[in-house]
Amino acid sequence: MEKVINPKKAEWSSLLERPTQTVEDIEATVNEIFQEVKHKGDEAILRYTSLFDGQQLEQIEVSKEQIERAVDNISEELKTAINLAKSNIEWFHKAQITAPVEVETMEGVNCWTQKKAIQKVGLYIPGGSAPLFSTVLMLAVPAQLAGCEEVVLCSPPNKDGSLANEILYTAHLCGIKKVFKVGGIQAIAALTYGSETIPAVYKIFGPGNQFVTVAKQIATKYGVAIDMPAGPSELMVYADESANSAFVASDLLSQAEHGTDSQVVLVTTSKRLFSELEVEINAQMKPLPRKEIAGKAIQNSKLILLEDETLCLDMINEYAPEHLIIVSENEDFFLKGIKNAGSVFVGAYTPESAGDYASGTNHTLPTNGYAKQYSGVNLDSFLKSITFQKISEKGLKNIGPSVELMAEAEGLQAHKHAITLRLNQLKRQE
Amino acid sequence: MEKVINPKKAEWSSLLERPTQTVEDIEATVNEIFQEVKHKGDEAILRYTSLFDGQQLEQIEVSKEQIERAVDNISEELKTAINLAKSNIEWFHKAQITAPVEVETMEGVNCWTQKKAIQKVGLYIPGGSAPLFSTVLMLAVPAQLAGCEEVVLCSPPNKDGSLANEILYTAHLCGIKKVFKVGGIQAIAALTYGSETIPAVYKIFGPGNQFVTVAKQIATKYGVAIDMPAGPSELMVYADESANSAFVASDLLSQAEHGTDSQVVLVTTSKRLFSELEVEINAQMKPLPRKEIAGKAIQNSKLILLEDETLCLDMINEYAPEHLIIVSENEDFFLKGIKNAGSVFVGAYTPESAGDYASGTNHTLPTNGYAKQYSGVNLDSFLKSITFQKISEKGLKNIGPSVELMAEAEGLQAHKHAITLRLNQLKRQE
Repeated sequence: MEKVINPKKAEWSSLLERPTQTVEDIEATVNEIFQEVKHKGDEAILRYTSLFDGQQLEQIEVSKEQIERAVDNISEELKTAINLAKSNIEWFHKAQITAPVEVETMEGVNCWTQKKAIQKVGLYIPGGSAPLFSTVLMLAVPAQLAGCEEVVLCSPPNKDGSLANEILYTAHLCGIKKVFKVGGIQAIAALTYGSETIPAVYKIFGPGNQFVTVAKQIATKYGVAIDMPAGPSELMVYADESANSAFVASDLLSQAEHGTDSQVVLVTTSKRLFSELEVEINAQMKPLPRKEIAGKAIQNSKLILLEDETLCLDMINEYAPEHLIIVSENEDFFLKGIKNAGSVFVGAYTPESAGDYASGTNHTLPTNGYAKQYSGVNLDSFLKSITFQKISEKGLKNIGPSVELMAEAEGLQAHKHAITLRLNQLKRQE
Repeated sequence: MEKVINPKKAEWSSLLERPTQTVEDIEATVNEIFQEVKHKGDEAILRYTSLFDGQQLEQIEVSKEQIERAVDNISEELKTAINLAKSNIEWFHKAQITAPVEVETMEGVNCWTQKKAIQKVGLYIPGGSAPLFSTVLMLAVPAQLAGCEEVVLCSPPNKDGSLANEILYTAHLCGIKKVFKVGGIQAIAALTYGSETIPAVYKIFGPGNQFVTVAKQIATKYGVAIDMPAGPSELMVYADESANSAFVASDLLSQAEHGTDSQVVLVTTSKRLFSELEVEINAQMKPLPRKEIAGKAIQNSKLILLEDETLCLDMINEYAPEHLIIVSENEDFFLKGIKNAGSVFVGAYTPESAGDYASGTNHTLPTNGYAKQYSGVNLDSFLKSITFQKISEKGLKNIGPSVELMAEAEGLQAHKHAITLRLNQLKRQE
């Protein structure tokens, strides 16, 4: 745990540097798998699933019966919890629906927008040690609200060749009809090109390890959009003298248990917190089942003491954290000043966990400083906006002469002519 | 000009295929220039400007004096036209401002969003035969409305080593303070890494040739976002028996003059239009200064006769045109049914030129079928949405137990603990 007191601004960028990602090393593998899946389809997908996941599958699509069995195997308690989370996520994402924009920019010149669902989307749910069914909620709920016609879910098979009941239950709850036991690069390639059983989609969503991340980046070369580039998950906490150090430590640890490469940073103006926190973290870490992982992430974490709140705010905006917790007696100052962050958690009783699962906000967020230019996943991520214009005869008379002049100045005579022809016709009619 | 009557649906995808782009061939060049600009900054930029643009520049930044001189050199007539276009574009993009979303998803659980400007953006304006100052309007107006703090414009120097007066005037009008005479791959590399004089930005906007397009794609590997991938410009027209064939021909030609690789497609249910159009196009093409270019694009263009409107609508949605003109007695059928298009022009007096310059809609639009998953540039392209949540003690009691259960089921005990700790504290206080 690195403890830093009043670092100079010139040192901030190296202090806040994220671990470099090794895109280039992985690219060759990704390109090879993409080519194989493109040309050999399911055969290649099954081969890579055997190679990387150690599973000899006969079928990659999860059957109706398997989904029904999963639904029966979830406890009523957990179903109620998932339903509560789903309901909150629906509320917040439904509130993001925007009315169509309609403007008469000049008399007779009507412009408007209409948002339409992206017809086909792919949702990637990582596998690994835990079944991340909460990510199914975060992606499938807005996809369903947007009205996407085809929603395809891919997730790597676990050790018995199946998907976790929780993932299947949540997918079923969100109306997803197509679920495939395919993960890693081969899943992203399948969603990009399509195969005999997996449909190609227009946009791919969801987190993943570095292989999936590079595969998504490569997929954008072949006509597919992605939600956003991804890196390891991260949390920055700003806490002042009013903060409870046990609460803050628990939040830092909840981020740290995600992975050894998780980023955890505390920025504070409180000397008390700065000195208490290490002890508190170590005490809370001991009983954790994932303490090995959390411990490594905590080793790379940073506690930074700064002189005043303005400096802290500057540091927040320079780091652009995926998750940001603000515990401050002066919280309005921060709420007004935050320029770059994915999702912000305000106050002592708003731990990151709440937003990870159930407050209603989305947990698929920009990491690695991308909060400077990307939003987290939201309803609009599943829509695109089409613009329309309808110009009356009067309207064309109003803007036509300006268009003619501008087209002429750009050397585009045919653009001008399309206007002139119509204006002449209108003159003849007068 | 390929004329096709009632093609079978199975043939549509090859019929509507866009020319393949040669990303791979260009990647090596792009990577090399990126490395040079990253490590050698201005020296490399000047070297490539000499190599590719044939200009030995001493300064790449356009001075205040040069901008003032440009302003004096634009005719009052053209200034008025540009001002009118700017005003319409402002109206339409200002109308896209959305209110913050605020929802209490459960009692004591408050979630909201706030949109914030992307602080630093780069606008790329292509050079070549004509000064595309209209693109300056389309990018700079929403950047200014969004409140981007730093707006950087790059455009390649023309044959006398300067930028066109029209570009400088329009940039000045839109409040852009930093204008650089740098184009091509080296401009995109400079905006990605920054150099001694050109600031690095968070997102790069604007069209360009295939080198710029590949450079933007590569830039996304290095922490920069882009507006969208780009391909050659394209127009699909649906016109029925009611359409004026001279108007339709003028629209097809206005698209065709953009470049020899422009895509021009007419879909119609009218046998009259289908047979008249070729003669009309040839007649209108003759006097055009860019008839060589338009002629080549028209050679590759397609006139497609289909049996009914439903098939035409299906073909529109399968092609997902950048620009779509609808001239139909049954226009509501199309307006309701369009799923994939960049910008739509409705009716006989709404030529594409009107939207290219002055109706108010944006002309930076998804090409190459990307209208299936991308919006054109709009106000939100310059903003990102940050989510916030604030949970009261009551709120945490409401959602806490569900979060505990879900975190447990995902095997994330520290996530659970961050809740349990707080709920225990609340119990003690009771």
